[in-house]
Amino acid sequence: MSTPKQIQLSHGGGGREMAELIGKLFFEAFDNQILRQEEDAASLNMTGPIAFTTDSFVVSPLFFKGGNIGKLAIAGTVNDLAMMGAEPQYLSCGFIIEEGFEIARLKEIVQTMAAELKKSGAKIVCGDTKVVPKGCADGVFINTSGVGRILKPGISVHAVRPGDAIILSRDIGCHGAAILAAREGLELESELQSDCATLWPMVEQLIAANLPLHAMRDATRGGIAAVLNEWAKAANVGIELSEEAIPVRDEVRGVCELYGFEPWDLANEGTFVIALPQEIAAEAINVMHQFCNCDQARIVGTVTEANAGKVILHSPWGSKRYLELPAGELLPRIC
Amino acid sequence: MSTPKQIQLSHGGGGREMAELIGKLFFEAFDNQILRQEEDAASLNMTGPIAFTTDSFVVSPLFFKGGNIGKLAIAGTVNDLAMMGAEPQYLSCGFIIEEGFEIARLKEIVQTMAAELKKSGAKIVCGDTKVVPKGCADGVFINTSGVGRILKPGISVHAVRPGDAIILSRDIGCHGAAILAAREGLELESELQSDCATLWPMVEQLIAANLPLHAMRDATRGGIAAVLNEWAKAANVGIELSEEAIPVRDEVRGVCELYGFEPWDLANEGTFVIALPQEIAAEAINVMHQFCNCDQARIVGTVTEANAGKVILHSPWGSKRYLELPAGELLPRIC
Repeated sequence: MSTPKQIQLSHGGGGREMAELIGKLFFEAFDNQILRQEEDAASLNMTGPIAFTTDSFVVSPLFFKGGNIGKLAIAGTVNDLAMMGAEPQYLSCGFIIEEGFEIARLKEIVQTMAAELKKSGAKIVCGDTKVVPKGCADGVFINTSGVGRILKPGISVHAVRPGDAIILSRDIGCHGAAILAAREGLELESELQSDCATLWPMVEQLIAANLPLHAMRDATRGGIAAVLNEWAKAANVGIELSEEAIPVRDEVRGVCELYGFEPWDLANEGTFVIALPQEIAAEAINVMHQFCNCDQARIVGTVTEANAGKVILHSPWGSKRYLELPAGELLPRIC
Repeated sequence: MSTPKQIQLSHGGGGREMAELIGKLFFEAFDNQILRQEEDAASLNMTGPIAFTTDSFVVSPLFFKGGNIGKLAIAGTVNDLAMMGAEPQYLSCGFIIEEGFEIARLKEIVQTMAAELKKSGAKIVCGDTKVVPKGCADGVFINTSGVGRILKPGISVHAVRPGDAIILSRDIGCHGAAILAAREGLELESELQSDCATLWPMVEQLIAANLPLHAMRDATRGGIAAVLNEWAKAANVGIELSEEAIPVRDEVRGVCELYGFEPWDLANEGTFVIALPQEIAAEAINVMHQFCNCDQARIVGTVTEANAGKVILHSPWGSKRYLELPAGELLPRIC
């Protein structure tokens, strides 16, 4: 029997072909003791407070500057755990694959996932593979769920307090702009690429420094506008931002102007915000500056009692306006 | 603003419309304290060995006799935990929805999920919603992952031993046959419906009875043929089955004859097999008989040292043949 070059319906049938695909492709790339048990569920030894999260990825195109759907799927779920102060330990992955998808491309995605896992030390311990007929999905969709021990309990959207500083880890909007550029066939002569990255190494150091982190969140769909509005609402506080302090690359500004977006609404996949007491902000920023990905980390705003539930953006010219929760279509299939 | 009747791309954008959909539809149906925290990840208090599993559901049609994709998504993941001797405690759910999908149908699916959760007491504690443009998916796909405390450690595909009895919980093939009938527009004048069911109540009683269960598995894709072949291989044992002992409904036999399937290869969604020492099989069967869904539970085979790695089916006429791991396309989008 010759090995097929494309995914066939039988690869999702639960029989011999599926066993072969799983054995050759997934087990080889993700190999670990727990996965190899091949039980209905992975058996894990965990104690204490545990974070549990899930994300499905449907990004289009599947490959883009700075990553692919596989990198996104690992970094996204690892980051959701990290943002809760949890060590990313165990991940599941569920593939929905369209019949006819190139096995070579699937392999590339899977190998990217394996490489990205190394950055946090998380392991894929269980999975699922479904194949749908041609035309019933678009290439490949990936769900990753994850669990991890919470090393620093209490980090919460509800813990944001008046007087907190808002730290932003880097410039915003790169993921959204990179996907939009790829989709529109924009040949930018620049280095614009997705910020997609595993954030655990930075978070691990912030936790090790024993800083009183109040809230942390990666600014994915809806950008920093969505995160900060959620914080303002959940914690019933006001958030004041300095537009000047928020780094935005020229290429991102360009894409925004071309297509009528605001950089604060654009998705990021490796950019996060922290709320923590003003007096330890400098120390946190020092820790972050050790990492290339955070070398622009800075204070971009403060939390106030006034204007509870609102985010206010101060322009460099002294004017101010509400930064609203984004609405409308934004960019479909951004992650 | 009038409420739309169909899912729109903005419902997956991470902004206002998504927040509304999540708040109104998902939070209302799945309401619990942990979910309401709205963090990036749910925070759970768990101790000891924990089972972790994932499944994506792409069944077509979405609604069928005996259930819908929502019932399947809950029962499927709960059952994977139960089969490891784990109490199904916390589930995640990730929706991938096609633009234009009727919100009323989505609501029906979500309400079915909420009702099915009650049968095990499991809670949905985190989720994710993605919307893809029309034509990029077929209706709705659901991923459910789950975690639960292992109450009875050691249940494992590797623990099947020569001398074990193989117990089958009920008649086989109903899910596969029901989906096939629905897909082909077969108007059976019968009661044929999917066996889709949450198996935790039966497993909970088996655990409470403190029986030395060696292995348990629900016979989903690939049917009992796939499960028993996996057991034979993983535990390096032979499995001998009595064809006569395996209950198959006439309607399932009919569908099999019409379409050229074997009932052992057909998927089930609420039917499981147990391997345990012969001498306590009767006690286990007594426990199972308390449940309507298991009132046909019986011994259908035995585990042998001979024929390691093979499953042998004994016909009522004294002949025997290998029951192979299913191969080929079987039924795409069966679950």
